[in-house]
Amino acid sequence: MKLYDYAGAPNPRRVKIFADEKEIDLELVPCDMAQREHKTESFLAKNPSGKIPVLELDDGRCIPESVAISRYLEAIQPEPNLFGRDAYELGFIESRNRQIELELWTQIGTSWVNGPIVQSMKIFDLVPGAKEASDKNVNRYYERLNREFADDQYVAGERYTVADISLVTAIDFATRLVDLKPEDGLDHLWRWHAEVSARPAVSNNP
Amino acid sequence: MKLYDYAGAPNPRRVKIFADEKEIDLELVPCDMAQREHKTESFLAKNPSGKIPVLELDDGRCIPESVAISRYLEAIQPEPNLFGRDAYELGFIESRNRQIELELWTQIGTSWVNGPIVQSMKIFDLVPGAKEASDKNVNRYYERLNREFADDQYVAGERYTVADISLVTAIDFATRLVDLKPEDGLDHLWRWHAEVSARPAVSNNP
Repeated sequence: MKLYDYAGAPNPRRVKIFADEKEIDLELVPCDMAQREHKTESFLAKNPSGKIPVLELDDGRCIPESVAISRYLEAIQPEPNLFGRDAYELGFIESRNRQIELELWTQIGTSWVNGPIVQSMKIFDLVPGAKEASDKNVNRYYERLNREFADDQYVAGERYTVADISLVTAIDFATRLVDLKPEDGLDHLWRWHAEVSARPAVSNNP
Repeated sequence: MKLYDYAGAPNPRRVKIFADEKEIDLELVPCDMAQREHKTESFLAKNPSGKIPVLELDDGRCIPESVAISRYLEAIQPEPNLFGRDAYELGFIESRNRQIELELWTQIGTSWVNGPIVQSMKIFDLVPGAKEASDKNVNRYYERLNREFADDQYVAGERYTVADISLVTAIDFATRLVDLKPEDGLDHLWRWHAEVSARPAVSNNP
């Protein structure tokens, strides 16, 4: 299986961590986003959204989207379980993962697209005021997480799941590239971050 | 099982259609969003994001988020299968559903929040220019879908899945409340829309 990847990009990182947790080997194929390779006709045939990561199976079929790829990997290698073992867990872990994606990741994305690095590439129109609004939403979500981590060891409660991978990659990307590092005083959030960052699958895929 | 609902809201509609496809009965409990009931302390205990739908199980545990609830329902009532039967389907259907959510639903949401109905409620700050950008993205996605439906009967290929429910509810909401009806000339998209809208589970949950 091949994974179309770009060094430093957060969404392929999610898949690489997920695969390492399951000890699944993926052949990494660099997709040169700086040269817009993800928008070429041949790449769009693999993923009409023109985004990475994409998993290409040995028979040529392709699955885009980090969480969709992760679900495929969970199905072919069920252990360790990262999406849930019973109906309640399958629903609840999905809900936690989705809230991080829909309420945190999307806002980090808006700040990224309207921030200095992407704007200097001149590929997206600036929406004035959008970054200020999304920065505020990101910091508000960090505060919510900090309150939740006062009681919960992990995002979905007492065990590590795909939702922790979604969150640690979001925070690391926001910290490194979007100037949205969580504030120092968010002790519970940082306790969780240190614990998850120490996992080999996470630290080996920085 | 109780489903916290609000008449006309698109996300509870997704769950109601999904449950009807599986012939699962849900007790609908109205949550009065006009009175901000979804932001009360007792509701936030059910869903810290303060959103509907929320599924409350008979033992009091809660699952928020329409797709997460749908996954729970798929686990307790596997037929008809709507999320995928094997590893490839589980990944591919998820990828199609996610692209509709992340690239179409989020943009419809931006147009909704920055449009006249929500802005008249004075609960969200207007981001000037945001609606123009998201309207453009919505129409671009409709054109992509129209091209795809020239070849594919349903969103994920040859059979009806959760991704069709995500799309029909998105388009109906955009048409009715966000002034983003797909253009008349998008024949393949409208062919698909007519077919899915004729399903009893869809037409019985308008």
